[in-house]
Amino acid sequence: MLTDTFALKGTICYSISPQELSITPNSYLICSQGKCAGIFPVLPEKYRGIPCKDYKDDLIIPGLTDLHVHAPQYTFRASGMDLELLDWLNTYTFPQEARYEDPEFAKEAYSIFAEDMKKSPNTRACIFGTLHVPATEILMEQLDKTGLKTMVGKVNMDRNGSARLQEESAQTSADATVRWIEDTLNRFENTNPILTPRFTPSCSDELMKKLSEIQKKYHLPMQSHLSENFGEIAWVKELCPNTHFYGEAYSQFDLFGGDCPTIMAHCVHSSDEEIALMKKQGVYIAHCPQSNTNLSSGISPARRYLDEGMQIGLGSDIAGGTSVSILRAMADAIQVSKLYWRLIDSSMKPLTVEEAFYMGTEGGGSFFGKVGNFKDGYEFDAVVLNDSTIPTPLKLSPKNKLERLIYLSDDRNITAKYVAGRKIL
Amino acid sequence: MLTDTFALKGTICYSISPQELSITPNSYLICSQGKCAGIFPVLPEKYRGIPCKDYKDDLIIPGLTDLHVHAPQYTFRASGMDLELLDWLNTYTFPQEARYEDPEFAKEAYSIFAEDMKKSPNTRACIFGTLHVPATEILMEQLDKTGLKTMVGKVNMDRNGSARLQEESAQTSADATVRWIEDTLNRFENTNPILTPRFTPSCSDELMKKLSEIQKKYHLPMQSHLSENFGEIAWVKELCPNTHFYGEAYSQFDLFGGDCPTIMAHCVHSSDEEIALMKKQGVYIAHCPQSNTNLSSGISPARRYLDEGMQIGLGSDIAGGTSVSILRAMADAIQVSKLYWRLIDSSMKPLTVEEAFYMGTEGGGSFFGKVGNFKDGYEFDAVVLNDSTIPTPLKLSPKNKLERLIYLSDDRNITAKYVAGRKIL
Repeated sequence: MLTDTFALKGTICYSISPQELSITPNSYLICSQGKCAGIFPVLPEKYRGIPCKDYKDDLIIPGLTDLHVHAPQYTFRASGMDLELLDWLNTYTFPQEARYEDPEFAKEAYSIFAEDMKKSPNTRACIFGTLHVPATEILMEQLDKTGLKTMVGKVNMDRNGSARLQEESAQTSADATVRWIEDTLNRFENTNPILTPRFTPSCSDELMKKLSEIQKKYHLPMQSHLSENFGEIAWVKELCPNTHFYGEAYSQFDLFGGDCPTIMAHCVHSSDEEIALMKKQGVYIAHCPQSNTNLSSGISPARRYLDEGMQIGLGSDIAGGTSVSILRAMADAIQVSKLYWRLIDSSMKPLTVEEAFYMGTEGGGSFFGKVGNFKDGYEFDAVVLNDSTIPTPLKLSPKNKLERLIYLSDDRNITAKYVAGRKIL
Repeated sequence: MLTDTFALKGTICYSISPQELSITPNSYLICSQGKCAGIFPVLPEKYRGIPCKDYKDDLIIPGLTDLHVHAPQYTFRASGMDLELLDWLNTYTFPQEARYEDPEFAKEAYSIFAEDMKKSPNTRACIFGTLHVPATEILMEQLDKTGLKTMVGKVNMDRNGSARLQEESAQTSADATVRWIEDTLNRFENTNPILTPRFTPSCSDELMKKLSEIQKKYHLPMQSHLSENFGEIAWVKELCPNTHFYGEAYSQFDLFGGDCPTIMAHCVHSSDEEIALMKKQGVYIAHCPQSNTNLSSGISPARRYLDEGMQIGLGSDIAGGTSVSILRAMADAIQVSKLYWRLIDSSMKPLTVEEAFYMGTEGGGSFFGKVGNFKDGYEFDAVVLNDSTIPTPLKLSPKNKLERLIYLSDDRNITAKYVAGRKIL
């Protein structure tokens, strides 16, 4: 009767709301058939005898979601960080992504990425591949084996790439996309395709039209980039003179939320009109604070998005960002929000630990459904964190322990990881 | 004849100037009697037969200097990061520093700090203790044993502390300082006292006068804080109505560079007049980018200080900052300089990897003499870095390896560490 039911014991920590944490030491977190089934100070009668793993004083938090990460760029993360977005793409990124034409290279590179993702505190991710179908399928195979739940995109780009990194035509790009979807949809246990037009400068109107048709046929979610950097925004304005703001370059093709569940990365310089449309359409914002700093893009107004009740999660944006850990992204988000407050707008209060934690858990996780929380019925994604590598003579509150792990943890602090009830680490 | 002479082999990397690195793979770095004695592609005849340690492809860089760190605050680093400077001091810092009245607590807390400093890529540091003489001597004893070269300060504070963290009078503070200096000057092999008035709000004019006399008598260097945060600056203006800018609160007592070698931490909001005086007096700036972000202080104009040829190094500023690694401080410095360029002044170009590396090595190291470089005659401080925990299928240039280690390294990447010719790790 209670097969597939077990308990974890430890200090259970999750978001009650974006502003408030629930923290209960010495408690039992029940997993039943892959779902959360309650938190109890004492194991209730009906759960007597179920397997229980006691993590003592370790923190048990919901699995984290990386809403925006480029798997092929993991090879050169943290090198060549001296350019702004467009020059960075042309100089470093496109030549490196072109190498994934070679499946052997893809196998080697993606195995490192998949392994490090597995060791991270993340349980879910929305991931860009390259335009190459074989390499993207290799990435999906490797990610599927990790047990992480992921959405992976074969990238579309039929213009402004380079001789070695561009699809021949809108038709070629669309055909390859359909082939890839047919090949991978529902093929894996943990990994599914997500439509991935790279960004407006990479995709002709004709391609966007075709992708919109594909989206409607297969009901795939979508991920792309939006209003990241001034140079990019000015270019989109040139490329799409009929649009009033960048987001319209997607929305004019019905690729901007609504029936097309959509993640837009960055939104650093979104106009009021664009923000209003994102809000109306329920577009997810992938806030990537470290990337926006490294590529000199600026600081995204995460405080505003959060206070307006918009959908917002965190992204590592490898290789604009350098670390896959969404704990690190929480720290980065808090840090840049302080500089936003100090340097841009003193009416925008810095993010709190609670708010950053919410964005890294349920904020992004909800793109996957009931994910990123321990409330009843949520998928059982849990990460166990141990802080013994960060000694202190102080007796710290669980909240302080969490804050320290946000700022200081690395893979050594991840004791265990469960995804949808399955222990993967 | 060639006792105390040995070679390290690897990829030798150091600053030729703030803008240029020398990087030579497969080279021999000679140490003779604790000093650098040349870099050679082939071991010269006269060095045949000396001990040689081959670190293969590992990078060998000069030891790093942390120009500003509060040892007693290491216990609560990365927790309670939700306040600005003055409230943060009163709420978190002063109560914690008060605990060092207990030597047993000091022993336990400082042993963790000393151990982590030893495992870091830093070889030198200028360190704040607390106002307590016994605890500060415990700190000095423990640091001395690590083999790191350090300057440690018993803190002076005779006003605006708290019931539990304040010296009774200027005289009490001065007397304790003299007792401590007499007790520790030249007592240790690796550790020496440095005069440490906490900051102007903590030190009465009378105390400053006495410290100036002590400085003249013992010829000690000095460290303090300057123009970190708007609230602090406004308070100093109130406390010292006779001064035109914060720096004058020190310079009026002859405690601002010149014959008194001085480090001033932060200098985030220094006026033109203050900058001119720092430059004239050769005051060292400890640039603490992460702390200035965490405490919402702002971004220090490191580009300006560097371009004006001023003395500038990097500080972790534990616990305003969270990490003792000056490699991390380099990354932080580059990152905030990009936001400075984007948000404050587009004529101030972001710092390069070369410049951040210079600040973390010779920029700060020169406060200790000929330190932080591998040019002939410099003290032999060397750190060996291995990047095998950060795998990539790419063949990276040594410069790219260095950049990755700046952004991604932790203690696992430190293969070995030498201070003044002695292997300490």
